[in-house]
Amino acid sequence: MDDYKAKFKNLSALYLNCTLKTGDEESHTDRLIKVSTGILDSLEVEHETIRVANLDLAIGMKPDMTKHGADKDDWPELYKKVLAADILVIGSPIWLGEKSSVATKLIERLYSTSAQYNNMGQYAYYGRVGGCLVTGNEDGVKHVGMGVLYALQHIGYTVPPQVDAGWIGEVGPGPSYGDGGAGYDNDFTNRNTTFMTWNLLHMASLLKQNDGFPAYGNQPDEWNDGKRFGFQPLMTD
Amino acid sequence: MDDYKAKFKNLSALYLNCTLKTGDEESHTDRLIKVSTGILDSLEVEHETIRVANLDLAIGMKPDMTKHGADKDDWPELYKKVLAADILVIGSPIWLGEKSSVATKLIERLYSTSAQYNNMGQYAYYGRVGGCLVTGNEDGVKHVGMGVLYALQHIGYTVPPQVDAGWIGEVGPGPSYGDGGAGYDNDFTNRNTTFMTWNLLHMASLLKQNDGFPAYGNQPDEWNDGKRFGFQPLMTD
Amino acid sequence: MDDYKAKFKNLSALYLNCTLKTGDEESHTDRLIKVSTGILDSLEVEHETIRVANLDLAIGMKPDMTKHGADKDDWPELYKKVLAADILVIGSPIWLGEKSSVATKLIERLYSTSAQYNNMGQYAYYGRVGGCLVTGNEDGVKHVGMGVLYALQHIGYTVPPQVDAGWIGEVGPGPSYGDGGAGYDNDFTNRNTTFMTWNLLHMASLLKQNDGFPAYGNQPDEWNDGKRFGFQPLMTD
Amino acid sequence: MDDYKAKFKNLSALYLNCTLKTGDEESHTDRLIKVSTGILDSLEVEHETIRVANLDLAIGMKPDMTKHGADKDDWPELYKKVLAADILVIGSPIWLGEKSSVATKLIERLYSTSAQYNNMGQYAYYGRVGGCLVTGNEDGVKHVGMGVLYALQHIGYTVPPQVDAGWIGEVGPGPSYGDGGAGYDNDFTNRNTTFMTWNLLHMASLLKQNDGFPAYGNQPDEWNDGKRFGFQPLMTD
Repeated sequence: MDDYKAKFKNLSALYLNCTLKTGDEESHTDRLIKVSTGILDSLEVEHETIRVANLDLAIGMKPDMTKHGADKDDWPELYKKVLAADILVIGSPIWLGEKSSVATKLIERLYSTSAQYNNMGQYAYYGRVGGCLVTGNEDGVKHVGMGVLYALQHIGYTVPPQVDAGWIGEVGPGPSYGDGGAGYDNDFTNRNTTFMTWNLLHMASLLKQNDGFPAYGNQPDEWNDGKRFGFQPLMTD
Repeated sequence: MDDYKAKFKNLSALYLNCTLKTGDEESHTDRLIKVSTGILDSLEVEHETIRVANLDLAIGMKPDMTKHGADKDDWPELYKKVLAADILVIGSPIWLGEKSSVATKLIERLYSTSAQYNNMGQYAYYGRVGGCLVTGNEDGVKHVGMGVLYALQHIGYTVPPQVDAGWIGEVGPGPSYGDGGAGYDNDFTNRNTTFMTWNLLHMASLLKQNDGFPAYGNQPDEWNDGKRFGFQPLMTD
Repeated sequence: MDDYKAKFKNLSALYLNCTLKTGDEESHTDRLIKVSTGILDSLEVEHETIRVANLDLAIGMKPDMTKHGADKDDWPELYKKVLAADILVIGSPIWLGEKSSVATKLIERLYSTSAQYNNMGQYAYYGRVGGCLVTGNEDGVKHVGMGVLYALQHIGYTVPPQVDAGWIGEVGPGPSYGDGGAGYDNDFTNRNTTFMTWNLLHMASLLKQNDGFPAYGNQPDEWNDGKRFGFQPLMTD
Repeated sequence: MDDYKAKFKNLSALYLNCTLKTGDEESHTDRLIKVSTGILDSLEVEHETIRVANLDLAIGMKPDMTKHGADKDDWPELYKKVLAADILVIGSPIWLGEKSSVATKLIERLYSTSAQYNNMGQYAYYGRVGGCLVTGNEDGVKHVGMGVLYALQHIGYTVPPQVDAGWIGEVGPGPSYGDGGAGYDNDFTNRNTTFMTWNLLHMASLLKQNDGFPAYGNQPDEWNDGKRFGFQPLMTD
């Protein structure tokens, strides 16, 4: 572990909890996030958890919606935190088999700034890694994972192996994660959350050592300027 | 480009085309695969494309279904090719908004062998990278991407940024990819397929240089033996 | 048509447009909604279209979130309109292959009141029919349809045949629905929107004539009181 | 109940079990199907259950693939049974969060014959109702339901309220449905399966009394002949 403490010391992680609970009402997803951040603590890796429902993310697809009529928009500030973090973990509950509307809006806003470039001319999120943590009373951990991880890779994140972890109980009503300790001893959830945390760290570290994701063949402006990187158009027979 | 030719010379890629067309009937997905493999050709990277519908993949979730009653099962042989390749690209058409049944079965079989370990004690697919190419007359490129990329990361593949490329035309009947040249000049498809190809190569190369995905905190047997990698169980309040 | 004018005269339809556009900014989804409501006009069927992003739907899963700390919650009022309509059509744009966060939140709120009963002891939404209209610059009409229609049937709506209509253009940037008339002459979209509108009317009319969805074998309180309607538990061998 | 026995006596139901288990190997999904067919038995409604993996459904999108090179194709025979049944229930296990490849192929084949018309000029599946039953060791009941029910409504089936039932246990390895009786006493699964069965019967009965789904505004050939049913094209501003 000590080797890794040194190796990971310049990394940082941001956990965005997309629970529908506002204020400081107990969030089941927050509990699972703590399993992951507990490992970061043991490695002294910096991390922050933000409850997105407590922010004012405006509705819309522009980087700053206050320039388009919104009274308030916390996205520009949150975006800075997203860019400052090497690791992004989206936490979401499941409702009707889907990620929460807060998670959906977060992904829209991540997308709304996805056309910006980093200093190597790649989309700004390149060089970062992403994962997801899901809890629910209802089923849908994997379905939520599909949407979240797809979106992250689509906008520039690298998705390391096995970075989808979660907990649900037996189908139907019953305790949610951590209610009366439900799920705390679930070996599958604990193992997956541990593997996920390590895999995010390993890949973030690899990319950091490499000064980001290699920049060739993936810069929009170079493509727009006519550079083709070996691409040849197909011809109609 | 020449630097990369040297850098990528020990890499190999496998494209598994999950078209519903059998024999050598023209496959639209095959056309898009050729856009990607054309770039590999320019870099002299080894690659192979296999049409999965021409194989006999048995129905079932065991590594070799001939040991469970199937007359024939081409999965054990295909699995060897999958493990031999640094890069796996799953190509699929879209039917009713979903990946093909051939793609679904391929993923089941990838999953059926996913409990095997590599020589570092990780799941066998670790250290490899995956992406997808999708064509359709109907819409669903992103939905197919969600399912395919989710499955790949879940079983151990690393998913680099922007490795989902595809083509569809305007909603409704009309030419499929390449029919009368349809889509061959689509800048979005051409750019995305190019970026995807490069991002798969970059990440495969990074992992190869690193002798695979870092092996710590992600080995099932070590977890099963009680090693915890900083994980601490949550306690009921 | 005149027969149907008489037959449908006591029906009403509610279109909830889940665009991310606020105020009266032009919505592409609104244009497609007008194709459907135009048919209702020709039949003199009452209808209303509401842009959900202009309401304050609170975050959360209780029927009235002002009783749980929210400053404002327009859901209780909107819920009344939903119950008053025989036909509910959810309109949504597509972002990153998903329905909008506004649509996701609308579905959460529909779900938040789904435990209420009608006067026959069924879930309150029984006896109504639902469909969806989707437009996007990106692909995903079918994927959005899957989530929306699933949610509607899950909470008690009947889903008639072919009630998913939409429009997208060729993959990549380009005009959205109606920009410069894009898609207005798309026969597939026009036909599907027409069939959808008629199928919603036909089924709403059938259910209305029948005084709602037949009430036997689907009333939660009767089940909770021990009535079993022919159900027999399986026995372990 | 006796009233309903009389009312439903001319109805029939087909259950297509899409387990990956072949031969007569015990299928968990089959157990859940029996909960539903047990209710039909108590009502003396005719039903049949077929294990699709034991048939030779050819790969491809034509109504009869033997006319396109396949050695064998059991679809044309199965299609007759599908058309003969008022109620179709697709049963599927969950693998990696998705319906089985057998279910995906079944849907492809249902789609392959979906362009045929009934004697009222509607798509052939009109006038029938559909639902789904899902079991899994892994989560995904709702995700599987989304895909299956979407496909059924898209090709002409009516989807009554709450026709998605299923069972999964707590996340991670553990008993599948019925192993040691697991899930047999799950009130949520039992209730949902009961409601589903009744709702399918109610709606099938309504449609049968009505001599099918009303035929106006939903006949492809009439549309193709220029009939518009009140549709008016939008005009560019």
